[in-house]
Amino acid sequence: MSDIKIVQTGSVTSPIGFSAGGVFAGIKTQGEGKLDIGLIYSDRPCDTAGTFSQNSVISPSVTVTKGLVESGRTIRGVIANSGCANCAVGEYGLKDAEEMAAIAADKLGVNSDEVAVASTGVIGVELPMALIRDHVPQITLKEDGGDEFANAILTTDTRTKHIAASFNVGGSTVTIGGVSKGAGMIHPNMATMLAFITTDAEVENAFMRQSLREVVQLTFNQIDIDGDQSTNDTVLLMANGAAGNPTIAGGDEASEEFKQALFVVARHLAREIARDGEGARTLIEAKVEGAESHEDARKAARSIASSLLVKTAIYGRDPNWGRILMALGKSQINLEEPKIRVFINDIQIVAEGKAIAYNVQSVVSALGQDEVRLRVELNVGEGRGTAWGCDLTEEYVVFNSAYTT
Amino acid sequence: MSDIKIVQTGSVTSPIGFSAGGVFAGIKTQGEGKLDIGLIYSDRPCDTAGTFSQNSVISPSVTVTKGLVESGRTIRGVIANSGCANCAVGEYGLKDAEEMAAIAADKLGVNSDEVAVASTGVIGVELPMALIRDHVPQITLKEDGGDEFANAILTTDTRTKHIAASFNVGGSTVTIGGVSKGAGMIHPNMATMLAFITTDAEVENAFMRQSLREVVQLTFNQIDIDGDQSTNDTVLLMANGAAGNPTIAGGDEASEEFKQALFVVARHLAREIARDGEGARTLIEAKVEGAESHEDARKAARSIASSLLVKTAIYGRDPNWGRILMALGKSQINLEEPKIRVFINDIQIVAEGKAIAYNVQSVVSALGQDEVRLRVELNVGEGRGTAWGCDLTEEYVVFNSAYTT
Repeated sequence: MSDIKIVQTGSVTSPIGFSAGGVFAGIKTQGEGKLDIGLIYSDRPCDTAGTFSQNSVISPSVTVTKGLVESGRTIRGVIANSGCANCAVGEYGLKDAEEMAAIAADKLGVNSDEVAVASTGVIGVELPMALIRDHVPQITLKEDGGDEFANAILTTDTRTKHIAASFNVGGSTVTIGGVSKGAGMIHPNMATMLAFITTDAEVENAFMRQSLREVVQLTFNQIDIDGDQSTNDTVLLMANGAAGNPTIAGGDEASEEFKQALFVVARHLAREIARDGEGARTLIEAKVEGAESHEDARKAARSIASSLLVKTAIYGRDPNWGRILMALGKSQINLEEPKIRVFINDIQIVAEGKAIAYNVQSVVSALGQDEVRLRVELNVGEGRGTAWGCDLTEEYVVFNSAYTT
Repeated sequence: MSDIKIVQTGSVTSPIGFSAGGVFAGIKTQGEGKLDIGLIYSDRPCDTAGTFSQNSVISPSVTVTKGLVESGRTIRGVIANSGCANCAVGEYGLKDAEEMAAIAADKLGVNSDEVAVASTGVIGVELPMALIRDHVPQITLKEDGGDEFANAILTTDTRTKHIAASFNVGGSTVTIGGVSKGAGMIHPNMATMLAFITTDAEVENAFMRQSLREVVQLTFNQIDIDGDQSTNDTVLLMANGAAGNPTIAGGDEASEEFKQALFVVARHLAREIARDGEGARTLIEAKVEGAESHEDARKAARSIASSLLVKTAIYGRDPNWGRILMALGKSQINLEEPKIRVFINDIQIVAEGKAIAYNVQSVVSALGQDEVRLRVELNVGEGRGTAWGCDLTEEYVVFNSAYTT
C-alpha cells in the first residue's frame, strides 16, 4: 500500500498506450477559449468497467456506453462532449449517440462499436451533429493530451480535475490515471458527473469490475452537491494491459494495491468535484465513525454532507452543531444520543450528545478554511464512512436561477 | 362531501370547548412583539392521534407527547414553545419537557399527564425553565385565542397558518380547526413542522387515528422546503366530542366527510407551510398523474417539488423543463419517456418526452405567479399524487448562514 506514487499532474494519458485530445466545436455557446469535444484513444484494446446514473430518464449516450460495458467487448476509445446532454430528445438521441461513436471510430480507424460515448450539458437539446462531424476529425491526439480532454468535458466547472497513481507489480510499473468533471450543482442543466479512468494494468476483468463497484461506492457515490442526480452520470474505467505486468486478479498484494490506487484516484476526482460545486467556497468532509455498520456510517455521512442547513451554516461560519445532529438523525440510522461526540476540524464541540465548552473563535476560524472536516463518533459499533459536499452560497442560487433558456 | 364549510379565519379554537392563548416569555431573543409560549385547553377530555418525526435524534418534548398519544389516555391541553427545540440537551431535556407539562397542568387545573408538549427552535439549547415557570401562569385563555396560539409557535415563519372546516352530522355541526408552523427543515416525514388540529366531533379513536395517518401521508408528508427533517415534528389531533354528534366510526357518509374535512384542513396547513418557506416567493405544486401506483406518483411529485434545480429555475422564471424530467427520473419510478407530458400552469411544454413549441412568454409569466403548478402525465397507469414546495432564493442562504451566531 505504501508504494503507491501519486502524480498530481497526471491524467488519463499517464498510463502507457493512451493518448487524448480535444477541440472547440461550438456546442457550448459560452465556449470562448474552452473545448467541448474530447477524445481518448488506446493503441490497443481495453477491457472496461463502468457505473452509470440510476435516473429513470437517461441520456442515450449513457445507454450506448452502458451497452458496450455490459457486452464485455473491448473498446479502443471514448468520445465525450460538453454543452449538450443528448437527453430527452426523442428517438434522435440514440441515433446521434451512435453516429457520434461512428465519427470518432472513423477518426481513430477502429470499429464504431469500439468507442464509448458520453455527453454532458443542457437536457432537451439535440446534439449538433454537423458540428461534431466537422470538428472530430480536427482533434489531434497527444501523449500528454489528458488535460486537453479534461478541459473538453467541463461545463461550468472552474478548473480541470485529474490525477494519476502508480505502483509496482512484479517489476512492471502500473499506472492508473483519471479525469472528472462535475459540479452537479455548478450548472443548472448540467448536473452531470463524468469520470474517465484509464490504466495500463493487465487486470482480470471480473476483478476490475468488482473493484470499480467497491471504489465508486466509497467515492463518487459519497459526494453530494445539490441532491440532484443527472441523466448522464458515468464512471468509465478502461484497462489496456500495456504495462505488461503479471495479471492482477484478486486475492494478492498486487490486487490490493490496484484497488487502493484506484481508490486514491477516484477519491481525488470525487473530492475535487465536491470542492468545485457551484458557488462553493469550502469543501466539506463528513466522517462518521463507530456506527453499527459501514453502510450506516456512509449513509449518515451523506446525510450530513448534503444537508442544506449544514451547508449554509458552514458558509456562515456558524458552529451550529444542532444542525449536524439533525442531519445525522435524518439518516434514521441507529444511534444512542448520550454516546455522540462531534468534532469540527478536530476540535470537539459535542460530548455525550450535548454541547461542551469550546473556544468558539477557534471553531469559527476552522469553519473559514478551504476544507472543513466534520467528524461524528457514534460509539455504538465499528462502522465508518466518509462523504464530501460543499457549502451553499447565494452564488449557487444566483447562478441556477439566472441561467436562462 | 359538498357540505363542508371552510372558515379561512378559523383555527384551533373554532371547535366547541377549546380555548387558547399565548405569551411572550423571552425564549426567542428576536421576540419583539412576538409570542413564544402557546397553550390550548379543552373544557373536557380529548381523545388523541398523532404523527411524529422519524429522525433518530428526537426532542424529549416529542417523546413525552408521543408517549401520551400511544398510551391512548385522554388529554386536556397542549403547551408549545418556540425559540428552543429542547433537543440534544442531555438528560435535562426529558425532565424539562415533563416539567413544562406540569406547569401547564397547574395553570389549567388538570393532571400533568393530561397535557401534551411541543417545542420548536434552536437545537442544543436547554429550555429556559425559569421563564416558562414565570410566564405560563400569565397566559389568558380565550375562546378566540387560536390565532394567539398560532403566533406563539412561529419561528422563522412570516405569518400565522390556520383554518377551520365544518360539516353536519345527524343535525349537529362538527368543526375541525387547525394551526401549523413551518419555515425551514421541512421534508417529507415531518420537519420542524408543528401542527395542532382540534375537533369537537365525537369520533371513534381507532378510526380517527387511521384517518390522521392517511391524511398526513397525502399532506404534511408531501411538502418539502429544504430536504432537512427536524427533530421535533409533530402533528397532534385532539377530539373532545363537544359537538354531541352521533359517533363517527368509519364506513358511512359522516366518516367520509370527517376524513375529507380533516384532509382539507391538513392540506391547507401543509400548503401554507410550503408557501412560507424561508426566503420563498412562490408555492410550487407538483402533480404527477398516470403513474403505475399512487405511491410512485407521490414519490415522483416529492422528487420534483424538492429538487434544488427545479426550485431555482422557478425562482428565475425559467421554463427549464429538462430539470423537471431530471427530478422526475431521480425518483427512479417506472416510466416510459416517449409517453411523458409536462404542463406548467396548464400550458403544455413537453409531449412524447420532448419539448414542443409553446409560447415562452406565457410560461415565463405563469412562473411569476404566487403559485406555480407543475403537472406531469406519465400515461403508464392510474396513480396520482401531489407534493408542495417553494422556490429557493438567495434569502434562504442569507437567512440560514446567519441564524444562531
